[in-house]
This record gives sequence, C-alpha cells and structure tokens, in this order.
Amino acid sequence: MKIGIIGTGIVAQTIGAKLLEFNHDVMFGTRDVAKTLERTDPGPMGTPPLGQWMKKHPTAKLETFKEAAAHGKIVINASSGVASLAALDYAGKENLDGKILIDIANPLDFSEGFPPALTGCNKDSLGEQIQREFPKTKVVKTLNTMNALVMVNPHLVPGNHTIFICGNDTGAKTKVSGFLSDWFGWKKENIIDLGDITNARGTEMLLPIWVRLYGVLQNPMFNFHVVVGKKP
Amino acid sequence: MKIGIIGTGIVAQTIGAKLLEFNHDVMFGTRDVAKTLERTDPGPMGTPPLGQWMKKHPTAKLETFKEAAAHGKIVINASSGVASLAALDYAGKENLDGKILIDIANPLDFSEGFPPALTGCNKDSLGEQIQREFPKTKVVKTLNTMNALVMVNPHLVPGNHTIFICGNDTGAKTKVSGFLSDWFGWKKENIIDLGDITNARGTEMLLPIWVRLYGVLQNPMFNFHVVVGKKP
Repeated sequence: MKIGIIGTGIVAQTIGAKLLEFNHDVMFGTRDVAKTLERTDPGPMGTPPLGQWMKKHPTAKLETFKEAAAHGKIVINASSGVASLAALDYAGKENLDGKILIDIANPLDFSEGFPPALTGCNKDSLGEQIQREFPKTKVVKTLNTMNALVMVNPHLVPGNHTIFICGNDTGAKTKVSGFLSDWFGWKKENIIDLGDITNARGTEMLLPIWVRLYGVLQNPMFNFHVVVGKKP
Repeated sequence: MKIGIIGTGIVAQTIGAKLLEFNHDVMFGTRDVAKTLERTDPGPMGTPPLGQWMKKHPTAKLETFKEAAAHGKIVINASSGVASLAALDYAGKENLDGKILIDIANPLDFSEGFPPALTGCNKDSLGEQIQREFPKTKVVKTLNTMNALVMVNPHLVPGNHTIFICGNDTGAKTKVSGFLSDWFGWKKENIIDLGDITNARGTEMLLPIWVRLYGVLQNPMFNFHVVVGKKP
C-alpha cells in the first residue's frame, strides 16, 4: 500500500521500517528535503538523521509534506506534536481530504524543560484540532501512548497490554484496527475503541504520567494494561 | 489509629468502612453535621446519605471538618476535588500541620456536563495546590486512579495492577505504602512511587481516560497495570 508518513524522527523511522518489512510503498514527508538529507547530527533522543537511516532502507522515499500526503492512500502523522498542525497545513487539504490520517503525535512541549507539559489538553486535544482543521479527513488517533518500539512490536512488553483507538469514522477505525493487528501484531482483544475523536484528550493526557514512569523505571519499554474485573 | 476523613461521599464511606473493619477510630468531617444527618436523598451516583450509612456502622463518628482533622493522627481527603481546598481550609492548618494527609480527590468538574474536565491540570494539580496551601502537612497523593471499591479491595480486579503514590516526604510515603498493603491488600510490587507531589499531575490526568473507559466498559471495576518489558 502507498503510505505517506509526515515526520522523519524516531517514531516515523520506527513505523516506516516496520511498514517496509511488509513491502509497503513508504514515503516520508519533510519541510525541506535537501536540509533533512544534509543533517548529520543525531536527534535530541539520539535518533539517527534520516539520511543515514535511508541508506539502510533504500526503498524508502523522502519528499515534501505535500508529496508524501499525496502519495499515501493512508497518511500517518508521526511529526512532533507541537509542529503537527503546521506540517499538515503544508501537506494541504487537497492531499488529505477523504483519506485516513493515523495521528500518533502528542503535543508535548519540552521548551520549558522537564517535565514537559501538553500545549493543549483537558477540553481539547491535538487529535481534535487536526480533525477540526481537516474536516474531510478521517482522523484516527492511536499508538500515541507508548514508545515507538512497543507500537510496532507489542510482544516486547510481556503478556496483555492495551492500545487505545478513537475517531469519528467507524469504518476508518475498523481499518486501522486491522492494520494494528496485521502489521504490528496487536491482539484484537487488547485494542480498546474509546469512541469519537474527543477521546484523544484522554490518551494524550496519559503522556505526563508516561514521561514520569519512564524516569522512574529508567526504561521506555512499558505499556498500560486496562485490567477489568467483574461488574459490581 | 485515630483517622480523620474529610468528606462523606462514596469514597469516604468505602474507605471508612474498610478502616472500621480494622477497628480504627474513624471520624468523618463535614461542613454542617446536622444538615449531613438530615439528608435522606442518595448522592448523584446513588451513594446512600451518610446518616443512613452510619446506622450500619455505629462506631463511626461524624463531626465538623475541623474536628475530624484534629481527631486524625492521619487525615484522608476524600472530599469532592472541586471542594477540597475549601473543606481543608475549614479544617484548618492548626489541625493538619505536621500530619500525613492522604489525598484521594480528583478535581473533576461535572458542572458543564459529560465528559467532566479537570479544573486544573498539566502545569498544576490538586495535590500540589493542597501541598502549597499546607506546607507543613505531608501530602501523599494515592488511590485516586480507580473506583472506591477497587481502592480497598484490589483483588476485585484480577491479577496484577498498579497503584501510584507520590509526595515530597519519603517517610510519609513509606508509611502510606504500608497502609495500602496492610489495610487494603495492595501488593508491594504493584505500588509505584512516582516521586514528589508534582507527579499528582500525571495521576489526576488519568481521570479523563478513566471516565471514558468506564463508559466504554460499562463497568467501574478496572484498573491500569503498568506492564514492563526488557530494557532495549
């Protein structure tokens, strides 16, 4: 399948690598292709620059946000949450209308240091902002509550654990749930459909405790499991 | 032990009943004792009025916020989160200074309907507000991320699942962790100390997804389990 990925960081690379294993036609989108390829420094979390990564993944493509969005039968937003709306505006409504957009981003702002805060939450969310900005796009929020390696390799965390999905379009959510299972190996029973896109609030608001748990555990390879007992 | 409970709702009653099983000397605090005892209507969630509840639990005491706080060797804030600061102000610094205050409240505001929003979050939390208002009190935030029945009966949710604790005073957290195990049956390995009281943000911000999960599952008897894999 032709898949456009908005973003070039660790989430984009990790998702992209997994999709390439299935021989999907993956195109990353960036603001300035030449500048992205020129970069030789690792990212803030030690992420290799995309140019270096692409040498190991020669079938991956890199173009502008606009071209990557146009390329994708589905589009994945794996950009930094604080930059997502700008990146998607560059990509353009004409390239996103009618498509499924899988939104993985979290609007975490590290500019005031640690711990990061969300740029918007509680009565709004990035998922909702994107859906409002692109009303003809089927925004499905998922994968945003865990480390990138866990997203695409849920078996790296033992036993059952939960992935949340939400969005306004039921058909789109059914398709994305299928991708989660078929591509990444998520068990159906561990996918919880929270409902419409306003539920992005709840999943994005998991990030503050996620960040703290990462610090306490000194290990990003964990996930939340919603364990359910008998009704009272 | 003499324990003061600020609040008279379902959380206060559930915690109180469990503490009475251990023969603790439990005193509930309310604003107006006569009015609390006069009430005959159930609360918004079907909670029995405290007067009715006390007939079944005759050893429980009911006095003002001030007297309940003075009574407690430790004090538990089980009031509605939007009313907690006012209730604790009534209770008075002179009755809270130097004591452990276990803060279970979440600042969920239902006044604008469903879903409720938090009155403060992200860069602040109720736990921090209380600690700032009562700098000589050892505020320990815990128990606030689950249904009241699960708080005091963790076995009602099968297998392992997590309870978070945070606060600035290490000794106070150690004591409260002991209470969680000894009184309520929490396994030591399921208690995660997140660090200082600023971590109340992360635990209070779990409430929006908790409320949605309650709706999706149609069952309040669930909890989050932090499942940890191998370090990468």
